[in-house]
Amino acid sequence: MAKDKEFVKEITPQNEDFSQWYIDVIKKADLADYAPVRGCIVFKPEGYEIWERCQEGLDRRFKATGHRNAYFPLFIPESLLLKEAEHVEGFNPELPWVTEAGGEKLTERLAVRPTSETIIGEMYHRWIQSHRDLPVLINQWCNVVRWEKRTLPFLRTTEFLWQEGHTAHRTEEEARTEVMRMLEVYRDFLETDLAIPVVPGRKSESEKFAGAVETYSIEALMKDGKALQAGTSHFLGQNFSRVFDIQFLDDDGQRKYVWTTSWGMTTRIIGAMIMVHGDDRGLVLPPRVAPTQVVVVPILKKGQDEVRARAQQIADELRSVARVHLDDRAEYSPGWKFNEWEMRGIPLRIEIGPKDLEKNQAVLARRDSGEKLFVSLDNLPETVAGLLETIQKEMYERARGFMAENTRPAATFEELAEIIENKRGFVQAGWCGKAACEAEVKEKTKATIRNIPLEQPDNGPRHCVCCGEPAQYKVIFARAY
Amino acid sequence: MAKDKEFVKEITPQNEDFSQWYIDVIKKADLADYAPVRGCIVFKPEGYEIWERCQEGLDRRFKATGHRNAYFPLFIPESLLLKEAEHVEGFNPELPWVTEAGGEKLTERLAVRPTSETIIGEMYHRWIQSHRDLPVLINQWCNVVRWEKRTLPFLRTTEFLWQEGHTAHRTEEEARTEVMRMLEVYRDFLETDLAIPVVPGRKSESEKFAGAVETYSIEALMKDGKALQAGTSHFLGQNFSRVFDIQFLDDDGQRKYVWTTSWGMTTRIIGAMIMVHGDDRGLVLPPRVAPTQVVVVPILKKGQDEVRARAQQIADELRSVARVHLDDRAEYSPGWKFNEWEMRGIPLRIEIGPKDLEKNQAVLARRDSGEKLFVSLDNLPETVAGLLETIQKEMYERARGFMAENTRPAATFEELAEIIENKRGFVQAGWCGKAACEAEVKEKTKATIRNIPLEQPDNGPRHCVCCGEPAQYKVIFARAY
Repeated sequence: MAKDKEFVKEITPQNEDFSQWYIDVIKKADLADYAPVRGCIVFKPEGYEIWERCQEGLDRRFKATGHRNAYFPLFIPESLLLKEAEHVEGFNPELPWVTEAGGEKLTERLAVRPTSETIIGEMYHRWIQSHRDLPVLINQWCNVVRWEKRTLPFLRTTEFLWQEGHTAHRTEEEARTEVMRMLEVYRDFLETDLAIPVVPGRKSESEKFAGAVETYSIEALMKDGKALQAGTSHFLGQNFSRVFDIQFLDDDGQRKYVWTTSWGMTTRIIGAMIMVHGDDRGLVLPPRVAPTQVVVVPILKKGQDEVRARAQQIADELRSVARVHLDDRAEYSPGWKFNEWEMRGIPLRIEIGPKDLEKNQAVLARRDSGEKLFVSLDNLPETVAGLLETIQKEMYERARGFMAENTRPAATFEELAEIIENKRGFVQAGWCGKAACEAEVKEKTKATIRNIPLEQPDNGPRHCVCCGEPAQYKVIFARAY
Repeated sequence: MAKDKEFVKEITPQNEDFSQWYIDVIKKADLADYAPVRGCIVFKPEGYEIWERCQEGLDRRFKATGHRNAYFPLFIPESLLLKEAEHVEGFNPELPWVTEAGGEKLTERLAVRPTSETIIGEMYHRWIQSHRDLPVLINQWCNVVRWEKRTLPFLRTTEFLWQEGHTAHRTEEEARTEVMRMLEVYRDFLETDLAIPVVPGRKSESEKFAGAVETYSIEALMKDGKALQAGTSHFLGQNFSRVFDIQFLDDDGQRKYVWTTSWGMTTRIIGAMIMVHGDDRGLVLPPRVAPTQVVVVPILKKGQDEVRARAQQIADELRSVARVHLDDRAEYSPGWKFNEWEMRGIPLRIEIGPKDLEKNQAVLARRDSGEKLFVSLDNLPETVAGLLETIQKEMYERARGFMAENTRPAATFEELAEIIENKRGFVQAGWCGKAACEAEVKEKTKATIRNIPLEQPDNGPRHCVCCGEPAQYKVIFARAY
């Protein structure tokens, strides 16, 4: 038992040091490791497989909404990048440059892509001629690089993995519909597959994407009360189509600029998943994205080969409904194994001992609630499949409850400052719409406007939390990752 | 009819200029476009989806053989890359270097990965301590960059997509088994999914991977008689484990260096697929990787809404067994559509006209053989599913026949030179094993030793085709891409 406790002790408790807890979990659950390159991580198989399941969940939704994948070059010539002024200003400080290649100094520097609007704009200029070529609905899965000053595994790394959708449309209305459709795809994916509740809304001018007309985001709340932007969808208007001359001949005989959008979700959602669901015992994985959903642990004693054989049989049976691992290692005690699989966040543990077999039962231990259930071995696959769905649903409900409890209204600046300082979480407040007020709150409290929620409440504060003028919007303030 | 012919005319005939035919097909079938970055292409959706299906086919096989995916950084610090002398010598001329980032000059240059043995070696050094940590069976899907002098879409581009497997083992025997297992996975994938017959074998010393002890390859034969290396599997011995100090404590209490392997397959296999199966009418896609497997073309005349409705119904029915596209565009003639879908290589076309409906039949046109079949609309899904399998199989058989016809023995240098000059294809010849003879043949005929086939024939040449000394191996010579 001493050994079991020691094992768990290696993870710093959340309320002692949340950041250290986060790092400990990533390391102990074998999700990632630091790489010998500034600000980069290695995605280890256990972490990468979560990303593969996120990719599956997103890719299926992208294709169901008519998008196809393509691949554009990693390198962007400097001249292309310089075309859109706001865009380059936003990304320039973060760019790595290739200046030498093939043993020679290049005549033009090549940026390693921070995002691909410019190179894709150049290609759309070539591809789009007629209204018959529209809409263009393309997504790209790739790596991108931003030379960030402060990095944190998954949440902010020099290189990260993501998808970036880039679409071109005939009308403004169609492009705006696309922007909202993809925001909804992101919301649905995060809430359904990662069990993370989010607030969809529009970013303020100061927080929008460099080059966009409007940026929409989904914002999630971490267990330490800090917000995390989990996905963004941008309405780019005709900004990029004018700069890259993406015109089409419409059926009225007129040449017109297309309306474009872009939208992206990155590997930071793995960080969000860890910080929304994890606890002091380690990781807690939502069943839908868990590499292993069920671990079967036979309680083995010498000479009890029957238990091992039956556990094997049960594991095999369960493979038709779940991703199952059988842990029949002889060199570790059941208690040690329980702790290890809890730390690794496996949603469901099945314990099978000789007494269970006598009673034709097994013990099912839920990682999310800690609950233990004694269930019949008859119809075990159905029981397990149902329980995994229940876990997924209840993890979402629990996180939604946490977000609701930690979303508080503030009528005055003092209230807002007090909540941010002592309670964190989301603060609902009125905002006059002026950048000066937004900046003042940020300066004094380190809280930013996360977004202007799509669902504006009927009641609530009617005045700007900073200047007291009538509020134009009801917004969410929070400190953020 | 004039319009139909003109459409096809835009593709250069194969026997007139095979290279131009290849470029024409890629462009017309919408697989890729040139990018505004030296030697790079954009994978358009139609080309990228073929890669997605290749990824599925390979990834399933990798996982079935116990491998998991991970992700390592794009950038490799110069000091890491310099550690393995042969390796760096092999890749140095092809490297692009990041020298500036975040507005500053870097203290150490970062190479954009040409392959990842070095950075993965550094991580394995950290991860592997005990024999219990072995084997490590990891694969990575990613982009890599090599500053090639001459580029050709898919076959050789500055940036390309690939997978690279990197494994570490306790014993030499286990590592060698892995090398051959993955070579077999590649062979099976290429022959089964891409319908491309290959010759598996070992590379000569001069053609092996920089840093490997032995390199194995699968070699395919293109329609113009040139060879193409479609995949490689490397036995790295302890070369990388000694350089990166990857040691483990064995159960005999000794610290030992691990044995490593690496193996890779790239987007060049899309080029191989085009050049093995394509013809003067355009692309011919193997059903397993075709984005669209069946196109339904209703023969529409004014007022015949019934035909359109029935075609829609048939297309919907077929979606349970195949990837189906319904082309009911009113602005194009059936003949124009037939040509377009043939050019795009869709395996099966279903034509439905009013007379067919009267007879309860449809016309099925095979892209691979040009054959037309009149089949009953009853049980059409079963008919189509069976036919797609037949097409896949017969495409492979046809390509195998072509390879067999174009594999010729040569007993003397003159015979070899004559075949290479006038007939191309694979030439089976004896080789003494000396690098000088290999170099002389290459110098005089531009043919290289593709590999030393695993299956060495009992009969055939007993002397070196170059020096006349007793042959150590029977090898395949060919000019290659």
